[in-house]
Amino acid sequence: MHAITIPEPGGPEALVWAEVPDPEPGEGEVLVDVVAGAVNRADVLQRQGFYDPPPGASPYPGLECAGRISALGPGVSGWSVGDEVCALLGGGGYAEKVAVPSGQLLPVPAGVEVATTAGLPEVACTVWSNVFMVAHLRPGETLLVHGGSSGIGTMAIQLAKAVGARVAVTAGTAAKLERCAELGADILINYREQDFVEELRAATDGTGADVILDNMGAKYLERNVKALAVNGRLAVIGMQGGAKGELNLGALLAKRGAVTATSLRARPPEEKAAIVAAVREHVWPLIEDGRVRPVVDSSFPMSDAAGAHRTLDESTHIGKLLLTTE
Amino acid sequence: MHAITIPEPGGPEALVWAEVPDPEPGEGEVLVDVVAGAVNRADVLQRQGFYDPPPGASPYPGLECAGRISALGPGVSGWSVGDEVCALLGGGGYAEKVAVPSGQLLPVPAGVEVATTAGLPEVACTVWSNVFMVAHLRPGETLLVHGGSSGIGTMAIQLAKAVGARVAVTAGTAAKLERCAELGADILINYREQDFVEELRAATDGTGADVILDNMGAKYLERNVKALAVNGRLAVIGMQGGAKGELNLGALLAKRGAVTATSLRARPPEEKAAIVAAVREHVWPLIEDGRVRPVVDSSFPMSDAAGAHRTLDESTHIGKLLLTTE
Repeated sequence: MHAITIPEPGGPEALVWAEVPDPEPGEGEVLVDVVAGAVNRADVLQRQGFYDPPPGASPYPGLECAGRISALGPGVSGWSVGDEVCALLGGGGYAEKVAVPSGQLLPVPAGVEVATTAGLPEVACTVWSNVFMVAHLRPGETLLVHGGSSGIGTMAIQLAKAVGARVAVTAGTAAKLERCAELGADILINYREQDFVEELRAATDGTGADVILDNMGAKYLERNVKALAVNGRLAVIGMQGGAKGELNLGALLAKRGAVTATSLRARPPEEKAAIVAAVREHVWPLIEDGRVRPVVDSSFPMSDAAGAHRTLDESTHIGKLLLTTE
Repeated sequence: MHAITIPEPGGPEALVWAEVPDPEPGEGEVLVDVVAGAVNRADVLQRQGFYDPPPGASPYPGLECAGRISALGPGVSGWSVGDEVCALLGGGGYAEKVAVPSGQLLPVPAGVEVATTAGLPEVACTVWSNVFMVAHLRPGETLLVHGGSSGIGTMAIQLAKAVGARVAVTAGTAAKLERCAELGADILINYREQDFVEELRAATDGTGADVILDNMGAKYLERNVKALAVNGRLAVIGMQGGAKGELNLGALLAKRGAVTATSLRARPPEEKAAIVAAVREHVWPLIEDGRVRPVVDSSFPMSDAAGAHRTLDESTHIGKLLLTTE
């Protein structure tokens, strides 16, 4: 098969489409013929040499994919050759074939193209595990989503609205904020022109956010704590603004607040399977009835993964970037 | 009645026993004739002028007391004049009488002297709400308690052992650590001579603590995050080592960890009542059957609250310091 390899870490040009050995499905795994993969920030870090795959994972980048099951390893039940699936991966989604633990498979939801679902597993699992399983967002509460027009952001807006929460978003352009509003966002904040703490406070009668989904890390830590409501929960899922920041425990204590930080990729298979099962139970029905839609910006041939990474670096996209093999 | 007043903030001598007006029980409150109050770190901050009582609370210090109900305000049910009780207070425990919302009352457990129970509400409510309601300590997990010989510490050790957890403690003297061991602590760390991160790691096969109960705040923040196990929860309840510290979100994310910070005093009455109800359900039976015992260091006449504060400042005590009116 072919896969995107990284002979030397570097810029987008470091991504090289090359002939590599086919993977073999191990115990409890299936082999998926990949129709499409999707791009995540973590892939950029891996391309740059800052994020090695976890032990046992594929050496190729790609944390999610969609396709068809072409073989079953030993001990797999509930899935058949030919099933259309998407999957959460430890790596290897930038390839024509990938071996996947069966607990990380999701069926293609009715009414959605197979390729389109390649961008669902990471965003659905990240948002559901953080906003609902960890931070327990409840109906009537306010969720602040940083980067509202990202793949994660567009899913977070829709899921939070579906459960009856109020949603505030930050984004860097009017076009991105407009798309967030179309998806249901109630409070729109242009972080280039406005202070999100002040804007959120003004829009919530001084209350702030019950839950914040943050991809900026250190750069936003102090302001995120300020933006929290009493009993608020800050869920950090990325550190695009650095890892080490000052935490004012006095401010956090005054709010009885919580700061959590998680990633999906390093979790053991049983935790990934539990999250995937929860997503199938809670998120998939919302996708099947059309209340939550995959937001895809554009698709690239997988052999041109470099082009998709250049688009990600430019940050003009809205939603997910896909990589198709067909 | 008499109460401890603070005409001018300052050292222990700022605490002045003076004649003051009797409190009146309001809607949903009872009047308690105080047999004993107990000392908490927050009282020192209030004495120093750094911790004003929350709106509506008594101006006198004292976050807990024990005594007998002498009058019922309007709308109180389930309690009678003459009942022996202890209570979680927003203030006013350093006084001969105090008005208490009925949701913050607990019956005196069978087999325990009334005065002894004055030191139970704050430690039981703080430990239960943080270690169990927020951090969800589970059987088989490891709890690290900083200041294991404090009132909070001695309660945390006993409750964690009662639910089948493993307990590590830090303290500053061999005598304090010995008392922690008698209460059930498994791992004893002298913070003056040992590095708690290294000691805990060595004692847990490198795993670390699933839950940490911390009173030091900023000073321990970096090391506490290092000492957390994967999926670990750091519960900050005090800032004796400062409020602002560097948080390494990368280290927290690698552990999928959580940092929470809470206090009891600022919570609204309904949250206090929910915690008190949980303590009555889960902690009181353990006290009544003798598995968890109040740990009292010594008692002072309430008029000599200054003497108790001097002892707290010297930090040679183990368990609670009580202030008796009789």
